[in-house]
Amino acid sequence: MSNKADRDFIESVAGLLVPWGVPPLAARLYGYLLLSPDPVSLDRITADLEISKSSASVAARLLEKYTLARRRGERGSKRALYEVSDNYEGMLSEQNRLLDAMARTFRQGADTAAAGRARARLEEMAEFYLTAREAMEATMQRWRGRGKA
Amino acid sequence: MSNKADRDFIESVAGLLVPWGVPPLAARLYGYLLLSPDPVSLDRITADLEISKSSASVAARLLEKYTLARRRGERGSKRALYEVSDNYEGMLSEQNRLLDAMARTFRQGADTAAAGRARARLEEMAEFYLTAREAMEATMQRWRGRGKA
Repeated sequence: MSNKADRDFIESVAGLLVPWGVPPLAARLYGYLLLSPDPVSLDRITADLEISKSSASVAARLLEKYTLARRRGERGSKRALYEVSDNYEGMLSEQNRLLDAMARTFRQGADTAAAGRARARLEEMAEFYLTAREAMEATMQRWRGRGKA
Repeated sequence: MSNKADRDFIESVAGLLVPWGVPPLAARLYGYLLLSPDPVSLDRITADLEISKSSASVAARLLEKYTLARRRGERGSKRALYEVSDNYEGMLSEQNRLLDAMARTFRQGADTAAAGRARARLEEMAEFYLTAREAMEATMQRWRGRGKA
């Protein structure tokens, strides 16, 4: 990455994702892939980000797991190529799963909580997280359907 | 925590939050506070969760920082008491800030990206994150206003 604007962008993306638990190298790789018009090899990533090939490989597989990147076998070879996933809703889908799981956990907690005050709070919070999840789900569906007749 | 249902609930909450970067003790403390009808002291937390007082203190301050818990001075004493924050929208507010920051970062990246394909993708992603943020913000406003005439 010889371009300063590119390096700045990559660091900005990392600065956003690292506080959310994404390891620094994976976060930087995501920024890098966002700027790459074509799928890139681990060798190329290793050179451009100045990291070891094994670090690049671990980071790339983590992004795959988060559904932020996807791997493509290079035609006629076993070399892996990585690119940003078209499914960039992946992170929000994960958040939605969290909201859903929190709503369920809190509702279950409300059923077993001994104290009335804790029970009422857990019920309200379960409803809140469910409301948020439904709103986010509806938004994502509208987004997917945009531009269609 | 002698009650199995309470212990299970605390571990469920921790199981949800830890993968999102919340340290295990802070995540367990959050589950514990959710079940506590009244504000609790660090001594009580220390005994109930079977952790050291300094660990309890670090975890409690972290939850405060996340706006998931708040500290109340005990009347007539310097002992700190902790309780779940009424502002349980805190976590979603943080997520909204992330969505907003991603939209801004991606839009800026689109301005400087060399490759046309990367530029178009970043523009689309910026729009997506902005849409998601606005939907979430609107939902939270409706939630705050619920029950009002």
